[in-house]
Amino acid sequence: MQPVSGSPAPDFSATQPNTRLDLQRIRQARQEISRVFRDTPQFLSATLGDVLGCELVIKLETANPIGCFKGRGTEVAMSRLASSSGPMAAVCASAGNLGQALAYSGRARGIAVSVIAGKGANAAKIERIHRLGGTVELVDGDIENARERAREIAARGDAFLVEDSENLDTCEGAGTIGLELVEGLDRIDTVLLALGGGALATGVGHVFKTLSPATDVVCIQPRGAPALAQSWRARSIATTDRTDTIADGVAGRFPIAAVLDDLLATADHVPLVEEASIVEGMRMFYRHAALVTEPSAALGVAAILEDPARYRGKRVAAVICGSNVLPDTFRAWMQG
Amino acid sequence: MQPVSGSPAPDFSATQPNTRLDLQRIRQARQEISRVFRDTPQFLSATLGDVLGCELVIKLETANPIGCFKGRGTEVAMSRLASSSGPMAAVCASAGNLGQALAYSGRARGIAVSVIAGKGANAAKIERIHRLGGTVELVDGDIENARERAREIAARGDAFLVEDSENLDTCEGAGTIGLELVEGLDRIDTVLLALGGGALATGVGHVFKTLSPATDVVCIQPRGAPALAQSWRARSIATTDRTDTIADGVAGRFPIAAVLDDLLATADHVPLVEEASIVEGMRMFYRHAALVTEPSAALGVAAILEDPARYRGKRVAAVICGSNVLPDTFRAWMQG
Repeated sequence: MQPVSGSPAPDFSATQPNTRLDLQRIRQARQEISRVFRDTPQFLSATLGDVLGCELVIKLETANPIGCFKGRGTEVAMSRLASSSGPMAAVCASAGNLGQALAYSGRARGIAVSVIAGKGANAAKIERIHRLGGTVELVDGDIENARERAREIAARGDAFLVEDSENLDTCEGAGTIGLELVEGLDRIDTVLLALGGGALATGVGHVFKTLSPATDVVCIQPRGAPALAQSWRARSIATTDRTDTIADGVAGRFPIAAVLDDLLATADHVPLVEEASIVEGMRMFYRHAALVTEPSAALGVAAILEDPARYRGKRVAAVICGSNVLPDTFRAWMQG
Repeated sequence: MQPVSGSPAPDFSATQPNTRLDLQRIRQARQEISRVFRDTPQFLSATLGDVLGCELVIKLETANPIGCFKGRGTEVAMSRLASSSGPMAAVCASAGNLGQALAYSGRARGIAVSVIAGKGANAAKIERIHRLGGTVELVDGDIENARERAREIAARGDAFLVEDSENLDTCEGAGTIGLELVEGLDRIDTVLLALGGGALATGVGHVFKTLSPATDVVCIQPRGAPALAQSWRARSIATTDRTDTIADGVAGRFPIAAVLDDLLATADHVPLVEEASIVEGMRMFYRHAALVTEPSAALGVAAILEDPARYRGKRVAAVICGSNVLPDTFRAWMQG
């Protein structure tokens, strides 16, 4: 279409939802991510799809040195820090996966990494942070107490704070998953995203709402850690006193206002699922797709199990965001 | 270097081992393979490497619609058949994985696929061949009886025979795994390859012996299905009366002479491993790398467990060639 003489230049940015994120920056982020975290497998699982009554696309983010998607965001953050004049040190609060990712991306660029975690954090994840050269500080309480401590350290000016989901690099890094899905498949009716702090949901959601706006963006939280989902419904921050879920990777209590705004602009549906459905989802990945997943990676299948009509016959992409589980715990879930 | 006047043109092919395979054709094969089977994850597993006493690189061939590497070969074979004047039908004998791969690659190109299997073949694999649109004929006996039947069908002229490992497309397709490893990593001391019919071993072996000749090419068979390994040692075809191994994907009794010749030119070491080591290898992938593997995929780790000194401190690449197991069988192995 030719622009009409005298009319303003076409505003391509108008097609993007109103979030802090930007498609062009997400495309640039892709260049800053090591090959080991990019261009991950995406394929139809006919067997699992048949069981679930839909055409299921698996997007596998676990076949990398840290077993989860978070390397995409930390690669972007550490790449930008390395070329800045900031301190060559970084700190984050993490239940484990972000900590592993930051330790990996920091070490690759000569940046010292400290990870703050609650004393109840997953032991296997903590061990792997050490193995990747990160320093770990355990604090009383949960991830929210750890976030507070990380902010204190950063406020002293000694380290760059990577606040998951608040930091745009973590969202835009995660958003590169969306680019790969949109570019690699001719149609996706629904994308299923675990909702924790919000980086994965808003990053991938931003890409879909820009390039494939008809795709239903479904972001799922456990009923036992519902703060951001409740905030989305109320269109206003809601917090909770505690969390009670096996999905440790998504268990936050204090949503970030800016992230909620982004989520309001990108998510179409934000269901809460039961713990039993999460376990059944992990069993299905194991039995029908030979995949070991952590609970947060099974939130999408849990959502299908609780509301099959919404997904029946659709082409549904499930992002398998992590596989960091203790083997004995996983075995118990598989046997229950 | 300028060629001396009157001298023959430089013979770059002299750097290749003397096999039926050709590096240029392997490079071309890459173009004929769907993205879904190519450029698979390859990454260091620090946790599993620490346990094994080496720097372990995992090359993951299971995150695709058929859960194994064999799509690489069938993509090449069916792509070439589709552009030929041959029958638009193909037949193969298969314990399951080749059958799934051929059904997938045939359907994508409008080629009818028949798979012949012994009645004892893995039920989950047979079911998946059906799901992918392939026809399955079960015959009395094992894979060798199935091979005979497939040859009969092809001899009638009704279908193109894909004889695994004898057919060069299957070897050169598998060889693309080697290209990805050599191009993606600056050094690999040892590559561990399951040895069944020989396509994977000779395909990847040919690439390494051409582009990275110092790499130790180790091809592993189970002690319960040792025909090709014994042939390699004797430098002459040896057959066995029976096989007795859980590694159904590599259990052949009648090696192919041309493949043995290729293996003699590419393999540096061909150990036989115990069943208990294979099970322990699967347990290690599960516990330390969150991977479900079929027994043939664990032959490499089994070899490390039985001869750790050979691999200590080395950078060792293990090709995870398949994940098609019955969940209940796998669970039993994990618990033993």
